[in-house]
Amino acid sequence: MADEKLTPRNVDFSEWYNQIVQRAEMADYAPVRGCMVVRPYGWALWENIQQALDKRFKETGHVNAAFPLFIPMSFLEKEKEHVEGFSPELAVVTIGGGEKLEEPLVVRPTSETIIGYMYSKWIKSYRDLPVLINQWGNVVRWELRTRLFLRTLEFYWQEGHTAHASEQEAREETMRMLSVYADFAINEGAVPVIQGVKSQTEKFAGANMSTTIEAMMQDTRALQSGTSHFLGQNFAKAFDIQFLDVNNTLQYAWTTSWGLSTRFIGAIIMTHGDDQGLILPPRLAPIQAVIVPICKSEPETAAVMEVVKRVQAELKATGVRVKVDDRTEVTPGFKFNDWEMRGVPLRIEIGPKDVEKGSVALARRDIPGKAGKSFVPQTGLAATVTDLLVDIQKSLLERATAFRDSHIFNPKDYAELVEVVQNGWAYSYWCESTGCETKVKEDTKATTRCIPLGQEEAPGKCIVCGKDASHKVYFGKAY
Amino acid sequence: MADEKLTPRNVDFSEWYNQIVQRAEMADYAPVRGCMVVRPYGWALWENIQQALDKRFKETGHVNAAFPLFIPMSFLEKEKEHVEGFSPELAVVTIGGGEKLEEPLVVRPTSETIIGYMYSKWIKSYRDLPVLINQWGNVVRWELRTRLFLRTLEFYWQEGHTAHASEQEAREETMRMLSVYADFAINEGAVPVIQGVKSQTEKFAGANMSTTIEAMMQDTRALQSGTSHFLGQNFAKAFDIQFLDVNNTLQYAWTTSWGLSTRFIGAIIMTHGDDQGLILPPRLAPIQAVIVPICKSEPETAAVMEVVKRVQAELKATGVRVKVDDRTEVTPGFKFNDWEMRGVPLRIEIGPKDVEKGSVALARRDIPGKAGKSFVPQTGLAATVTDLLVDIQKSLLERATAFRDSHIFNPKDYAELVEVVQNGWAYSYWCESTGCETKVKEDTKATTRCIPLGQEEAPGKCIVCGKDASHKVYFGKAY
Repeated sequence: MADEKLTPRNVDFSEWYNQIVQRAEMADYAPVRGCMVVRPYGWALWENIQQALDKRFKETGHVNAAFPLFIPMSFLEKEKEHVEGFSPELAVVTIGGGEKLEEPLVVRPTSETIIGYMYSKWIKSYRDLPVLINQWGNVVRWELRTRLFLRTLEFYWQEGHTAHASEQEAREETMRMLSVYADFAINEGAVPVIQGVKSQTEKFAGANMSTTIEAMMQDTRALQSGTSHFLGQNFAKAFDIQFLDVNNTLQYAWTTSWGLSTRFIGAIIMTHGDDQGLILPPRLAPIQAVIVPICKSEPETAAVMEVVKRVQAELKATGVRVKVDDRTEVTPGFKFNDWEMRGVPLRIEIGPKDVEKGSVALARRDIPGKAGKSFVPQTGLAATVTDLLVDIQKSLLERATAFRDSHIFNPKDYAELVEVVQNGWAYSYWCESTGCETKVKEDTKATTRCIPLGQEEAPGKCIVCGKDASHKVYFGKAY
Repeated sequence: MADEKLTPRNVDFSEWYNQIVQRAEMADYAPVRGCMVVRPYGWALWENIQQALDKRFKETGHVNAAFPLFIPMSFLEKEKEHVEGFSPELAVVTIGGGEKLEEPLVVRPTSETIIGYMYSKWIKSYRDLPVLINQWGNVVRWELRTRLFLRTLEFYWQEGHTAHASEQEAREETMRMLSVYADFAINEGAVPVIQGVKSQTEKFAGANMSTTIEAMMQDTRALQSGTSHFLGQNFAKAFDIQFLDVNNTLQYAWTTSWGLSTRFIGAIIMTHGDDQGLILPPRLAPIQAVIVPICKSEPETAAVMEVVKRVQAELKATGVRVKVDDRTEVTPGFKFNDWEMRGVPLRIEIGPKDVEKGSVALARRDIPGKAGKSFVPQTGLAATVTDLLVDIQKSLLERATAFRDSHIFNPKDYAELVEVVQNGWAYSYWCESTGCETKVKEDTKATTRCIPLGQEEAPGKCIVCGKDASHKVYFGKAY
């Protein structure tokens, strides 16, 4: 498989993506329509994502817990917008232990309702607040058009659910977690996301306000990569989450929720990959460096493997995630292709000449061919490799940022907007009316991605209708 | 809640257990019958269990992956014993996206079938073997009588699924993972389990041989705490897992599976807890030491908190999981009860006199009252605490082992067996016939727990029928 050429990105981006996911052994199709198997290499990447996020959640005061997979159908119906948003996508258990259930159980599409119910039991006083809980788990949404990692019936994610004594605290939490996601995406994933607020049309079903990190893929489509929602008192009222405040008055709590899923693996693939395969950011890569011994005869092998083992031990001791590919049934060339397909950031080649000279050859995954190759001494190799991994991480982010920025346009009028969103995003004033948003969608298939944070409050005119607008928004086609 | 006395173990063990689980905030009942919410404190314990196991799985060459929650009903039917064993316990999804499904989907009760299907796709040659995959996840079994952690509709576990080229390798894997479980239970959980082989009646539905680690709870009931199964070629034949061997001949693979679940939290509670609450083994405890500042006036508080912060920082730097209870709305006495209920292994009290003397008071959770209390210098405290935690871990294991051994009997005849299994286990020769096993069960409710490994092969007479027997077995009532 590793020997077969990938369909190039510019020929068929979608086919390129599907091939990479399968050939790099990230995921596979399950025998149930729309479900995926995350293979060990893909899951190892997800475990690194989990660790990087979980560390940030705990640093910001959150704890993990686990809530049930099954939710009574009646729970979803308690929040009007929520049930309208999710009911077309539900998987429903109607039989348990051989008998028809009195009340059908929904396989959770998200857990606001069942967690809201538990919070109403646990929260009595302002002293019980804030409640800052996260859950790692699986959820199910009955999607019709599915793609591995991007949209599957079952997917893996984390969902944070917090309850606060005041609106301000809940709003601050919403923005804090958005910035945690942005920090993670940019500094761990090398995915230069843009933080912003979703339009009313695009927000989460049941939220007052949704925020998002939006990433641009190499086909210039937007990928919503993580969301953080301010839920107001909507779920508190639906589930009776009330507490006695400092004045002994009963108040409804203010809640938030926020999630990031295995979809982010899709973001990494489509941000960094090239026509040779995956390119993984070193900070998240399950294997950061692969050592390929190059030897033809028995005596050569013994000498080379001695150096290989030593280098492996040194790198491991420095904390580099290193693997030795000592397969004998395939050629070094096959191995090169194989690890390029799997996106290992750095390849270390060690042959008989390297043993003689006390050197190794390094090949950067992000710079193909001779330009990415260097010959360095074995002495001090751990430091060389560590520095190089930092540099690769940085280069990936720079490259993706440059790509993104060169595909964001500032169209002068509506006609130009219609044109630019065919191959990029438009960054334009918008009057925030659903009418103008819908018109763009109907004309171009592009949707509003987000109103970015921190923009200057200069007035402008809506690119669609020409009326007064106070913010700019990104328009782009999305996954 | 922490102020209320627990029902003592000798009054009602089952009620004692239920109260501890709730009052220590380990878990709560969900609004769906038989489902549980694992609260943050319980989940933190599970995360430590996961880490301790996952490290051992990776050291023995396993990798993690994720397989779908949903399994087509037809898959379960491919292995006769398997479907017979599991069909009464299934939750079935019949509606997806608002439409009736053509083939109902089972919510996985265990994943041999769907993983078997994937293995048949992935495994082609002996070079692809062994496949050593583990999955952390949730499963559902429609149980009628449920108890938090011990038996719930949904529970959390890991399930390992491996495929091998030879019977011997698969048998070795089965025993390797059994010993990994035993090592984990004994050395991390301080739960002195006994390793052994299950009878044909008690084995996993679809296995050739099941092995188990069995623990004795303080009410002398047995808790099956982890199992490892040799599946022969049963699932390989049902799912067509075939490979070309070194001679280019098509062969069926040999498979194993093994699992340990959140039930182990129940084992920890019922092995170590006392009438004041939970007692957690230091190696798994989410909080290993809690610091309670004791001060009455403002100036006292400032001086005490300075020492508290310094001690906290020193302990944290040494790797101790430490928490400061600086709540002002409750008394130190309330805090003592609270942390005793939650089973924190060590309490550190720091008051104004300690500030003066450069000392702290330590209270061991496993030894109540004055006997467990000591006054030690602040200098060198990190080392003192670390040593004490090791000692507490050791003492818990010794105490549990002594309890277990004093409740294992060697009855001289069947009448005595009937008697001893009312308050302990019988360790007796058994002819391995289902008839004798069933008679014991009908007469006493005790079942065969396991034929322990490594027993001498001295011949004996079955305690039930008097016929020749080559092994001894444990009989005991079980959870």
